[in-house]
Amino acid sequence: MQLGFAMLCAGSVRAKNALNIMLTNVVDAVVGTVSYYLFGFAFATSFFALHHVPNDSYDYAYFLYQWAFAIAVAGITSGSIAERTQFSAYLVFSSLLTGLVYPVVAHWVWSSEGWLSPSAGGVGLLFGSGAIDFAGSGVVHLVGGIAGLWGAVIEGPRVGRFDAFGKPVPMRGHNATLVVLGTFLLWFGWFGFNPGSYARILVPYPDAPDQGNWTGVGRTAVTTALAGSTAGLVTLFGRRLLAGHWDALDVCNGLLGGFVAITSGCAVVEPWAAIVCGFFAAWVLIGLNKLALKLWFDDPLEAAPLHGGCGAWGLIFTGLFAKEELVVQAYESGEVGVSRPFGLLLGGGWGLLLAQVVEVVVIVGWVSLTMAPLFYVLHKLHLLRISVDEELAGLDISSHGGYAYAAHPEDHHPRFYADYTSIADGTR
Amino acid sequence: MQLGFAMLCAGSVRAKNALNIMLTNVVDAVVGTVSYYLFGFAFATSFFALHHVPNDSYDYAYFLYQWAFAIAVAGITSGSIAERTQFSAYLVFSSLLTGLVYPVVAHWVWSSEGWLSPSAGGVGLLFGSGAIDFAGSGVVHLVGGIAGLWGAVIEGPRVGRFDAFGKPVPMRGHNATLVVLGTFLLWFGWFGFNPGSYARILVPYPDAPDQGNWTGVGRTAVTTALAGSTAGLVTLFGRRLLAGHWDALDVCNGLLGGFVAITSGCAVVEPWAAIVCGFFAAWVLIGLNKLALKLWFDDPLEAAPLHGGCGAWGLIFTGLFAKEELVVQAYESGEVGVSRPFGLLLGGGWGLLLAQVVEVVVIVGWVSLTMAPLFYVLHKLHLLRISVDEELAGLDISSHGGYAYAAHPEDHHPRFYADYTSIADGTR
Amino acid sequence: MQLGFAMLCAGSVRAKNALNIMLTNVVDAVVGTVSYYLFGFAFATSFFALHHVPNDSYDYAYFLYQWAFAIAVAGITSGSIAERTQFSAYLVFSSLLTGLVYPVVAHWVWSSEGWLSPSAGGVGLLFGSGAIDFAGSGVVHLVGGIAGLWGAVIEGPRVGRFDAFGKPVPMRGHNATLVVLGTFLLWFGWFGFNPGSYARILVPYPDAPDQGNWTGVGRTAVTTALAGSTAGLVTLFGRRLLAGHWDALDVCNGLLGGFVAITSGCAVVEPWAAIVCGFFAAWVLIGLNKLALKLWFDDPLEAAPLHGGCGAWGLIFTGLFAKEELVVQAYESGEVGVSRPFGLLLGGGWGLLLAQVVEVVVIVGWVSLTMAPLFYVLHKLHLLRISVDEELAGLDISSHGGYAYAAHPEDHHPRFYADYTSIADGTR
Repeated sequence: MQLGFAMLCAGSVRAKNALNIMLTNVVDAVVGTVSYYLFGFAFATSFFALHHVPNDSYDYAYFLYQWAFAIAVAGITSGSIAERTQFSAYLVFSSLLTGLVYPVVAHWVWSSEGWLSPSAGGVGLLFGSGAIDFAGSGVVHLVGGIAGLWGAVIEGPRVGRFDAFGKPVPMRGHNATLVVLGTFLLWFGWFGFNPGSYARILVPYPDAPDQGNWTGVGRTAVTTALAGSTAGLVTLFGRRLLAGHWDALDVCNGLLGGFVAITSGCAVVEPWAAIVCGFFAAWVLIGLNKLALKLWFDDPLEAAPLHGGCGAWGLIFTGLFAKEELVVQAYESGEVGVSRPFGLLLGGGWGLLLAQVVEVVVIVGWVSLTMAPLFYVLHKLHLLRISVDEELAGLDISSHGGYAYAAHPEDHHPRFYADYTSIADGTR
Repeated sequence: MQLGFAMLCAGSVRAKNALNIMLTNVVDAVVGTVSYYLFGFAFATSFFALHHVPNDSYDYAYFLYQWAFAIAVAGITSGSIAERTQFSAYLVFSSLLTGLVYPVVAHWVWSSEGWLSPSAGGVGLLFGSGAIDFAGSGVVHLVGGIAGLWGAVIEGPRVGRFDAFGKPVPMRGHNATLVVLGTFLLWFGWFGFNPGSYARILVPYPDAPDQGNWTGVGRTAVTTALAGSTAGLVTLFGRRLLAGHWDALDVCNGLLGGFVAITSGCAVVEPWAAIVCGFFAAWVLIGLNKLALKLWFDDPLEAAPLHGGCGAWGLIFTGLFAKEELVVQAYESGEVGVSRPFGLLLGGGWGLLLAQVVEVVVIVGWVSLTMAPLFYVLHKLHLLRISVDEELAGLDISSHGGYAYAAHPEDHHPRFYADYTSIADGTR
Repeated sequence: MQLGFAMLCAGSVRAKNALNIMLTNVVDAVVGTVSYYLFGFAFATSFFALHHVPNDSYDYAYFLYQWAFAIAVAGITSGSIAERTQFSAYLVFSSLLTGLVYPVVAHWVWSSEGWLSPSAGGVGLLFGSGAIDFAGSGVVHLVGGIAGLWGAVIEGPRVGRFDAFGKPVPMRGHNATLVVLGTFLLWFGWFGFNPGSYARILVPYPDAPDQGNWTGVGRTAVTTALAGSTAGLVTLFGRRLLAGHWDALDVCNGLLGGFVAITSGCAVVEPWAAIVCGFFAAWVLIGLNKLALKLWFDDPLEAAPLHGGCGAWGLIFTGLFAKEELVVQAYESGEVGVSRPFGLLLGGGWGLLLAQVVEVVVIVGWVSLTMAPLFYVLHKLHLLRISVDEELAGLDISSHGGYAYAAHPEDHHPRFYADYTSIADGTR
């Protein structure tokens, strides 16, 4: 999935910044691996640097799975602050995000001792239910989206994103092919993440009948595909009505919004509900993007609306549409005679919905309390944003062909090559 | 695989159309998902909108597998009509193709009640054999290729594809890297489709010994790789002889032609036969491409010759070279003492070959009867082809850098941006 | 992985050569498949053209696995001689490499009858230990790297790579996006290769408890990710200190260097040791690249330093840090009471380290003896290098937009199209 993000980001920014954003994506993965290994996994499980792992509760596979989520979170946040952030700021925030902020949330929701966990065996669950966040609409996407929101707010919009009258100026990405490539790779990755999360659930319940879980994996993949496709179609036609043209990039973002939203409930809803989920996810995305323009909020990848907004909607959606039989199957090993809260609209009471709302509120609060101060301190220390000159220099040079795709200007124009290195430097 | 198609298509068209063709690829996937969910799967199995699924015969995994094939068919057809088709026409034909045309063929050949099925337990099989189309040389590729053939014939060639004297003018794709990327991704996808089809066969025969099937999966991957590689090599050298230069794109198309051809028989032939299969697939492709130029037939992706021609050859090939032992293993659970028709050239009689020929004829007929009228009606309603102005406008602007890769012309030339949206619109 | 290589190569060369290098990558895969099928597998196992396969010892899956390695070796070597080699030379060396040179080494180290094998059941092992090369630091990467070294030395540097005073002139690749794409794809591929190698080991020991091996697969993935990430980070900061700027491509190559190094010992070292491995791998890579510049050695993909240097370091590293318990688990089916040499620094004696050194020496010798004469003969026959005119013509034209990405110059400048075909030809 990190690859999908890298391509999506690279295609969505202007050519002059393609090299920079790809660097940050690679570095996210690399820094995230080390940081998560040293600290993050410990906060999620209390084993530092894989000391005493493997043991009865956790093995390497669990670590790998968690690690993949951790670096995805940092990738989401990178999108919101793209095209105007110093390279060293990435090193700092991505260490904190993968090493502390994300793992704590993962512990709350996914560890069987977590206070928000839905799988504590039926006793001591929040509102008798716990929050259902199967593959991370909240734990992964809302966390990344809120972190990106603060980063983008504190940095302010890119130079020239809004004109003197406050009207938005389009800044299209430089390579739509890469955006489509990235979207499909993420689709592929989501088929790994969502159905793959069954493994996480299976570990504590080895007695669960394989057959039931195999059906579950299949259902998860079907709901994922349907929610994404519906959201993509609705965004396509919705934007056609609003903006007057068909746009492949709208479909891509809509598709991703639908995936983000269904991620929470993919295992516990019926296929028809997934279509409902995708339908509203598209309107959440369209609405928040409109709102962002009104508020002069500039997020090159639409990461905060997409991952934050659709992630929050996904958690609420699960509280509304989770089906009793599937909730029991996923979190009670399919035991007979157990009853627990499920979707409000299906008659399951308020327990689950309240737990879902609590998860949204708690994540927004925790991430805001940790990441907003960090970005603010970096901002005050002048470590966050590149200078206006750098942004404009980028623009200027981009009209000569850009850097990541330079037709070897250094062979002919030594000056360009000098510029190149100082921009790549990120501290020019 | 959809990703592979998207990249292959994007790289094979001219830059001005890269955005458009990628849009259609994303939309194929998205429309296909919804259409197949609502109608297509029903025609293949008689369960609408996954109502009463999962049940004893079909589970979600089967649906996913079939769905992946369904959207692949629409992707093939898109290739043939690329660079000159209205966007709304894609919405129409891809709904019909994934919702009705493909599923009916899949039902005939792959459902155990299908009249062409080879796995009806030995009774009531067509010519005592049924048609062997393991992973869809006919069901997927021939269907998509014939649909594309009619689309391309009814639309006519792109403006400027043939000069005033009827001589073809080369129109090379704009990005060979993407073509290679797409080819390798498809290769990867084929390793999923062909060996993956064992799952489909395994479902009805749970008693089959795992070991035998594991060997089968391995053999399938080996025959796939060998047929593709042979066809790639033969195309490379063949075109070197005919056209006088080495061309990576020839290898790519040859490779794909070999894959298409072996798809039907990959599980029931020996590795040496796969080499024969690839050898002739390459010549089928080269020959049909020569013929297409003679007939002023313009297919930007060579989809009709490649998927249609090599797909038909693949069905015939299986009728000639299927090995008795492997046919029994695949379709009779390896039961001892059962005898059934196999490859004509290996002494298996005419039964299998006749069934294969019937499949070719029936598919060509059914797809022609459904898709040709559809394209013709769209054509008469002026909903099929974009105007000559649009095609030329595209050409004109492409020389300024193209749209999918624009170096932000909107920053400097507001007019271009306006053009951009109206072209992306597809209805300009 | 071949796809990863193709993208990595394409992005790392100058635009004028993108088409050519992708052609060679496709051809490597295609020629390699046929050559390995006909001869290579036989040298590794003594079954020609899969005759009498499957049998008790080898099945198709083993062939596929080995085949994937074989074409990877040819891909590595292609990188070293990129941008200046005749197309027909690729056909020759890649046949020999995949058909003879690599399979012999694979037989020595990985076949249970091989004299360097660590898994001969405890008797007759070299130095009582045998060489541990789990997924091919030596068998794959060192072989490919040394072959590339000889190719690059005999061809000499690209025209203009060093100026009249012997100072290196930067020749940056034309598309950093592709390099990042390729790197992530290779990462993905490595997760297949390294943990996947457990299958190879499992075959002869079917009694091994599944649980232990599942943990092993997980550990393998963790050590792979950590070694790569550490090497990437160290290269990033190391080059920042030495060269004064952050560079995404440095991270990519560092990452790959770490993967190459850990490939040998990924199953038999602890996660902390993987960090040590990656740390030194980065410095091996940086040091060898500095040395290469001093010696006027030109390797466009850094394939010889990266795969050769880090591959050799990986073998030595395993001899230093292999853990007793894990060595026994991997190569003795976890039998109790067995003792055998392990990492020198962990108190395991010299046996393993000596065997590792022998593997390095023997591989360097064998590949040099076979490939150096081949390249030399090709050189003397003027079949190896393209003419200076061709290289310069490439350069000249690349400044007009390059070929793989041509904005359809043929529509306007017929002369360019003619040039195009003769360059693609590779024999102009």
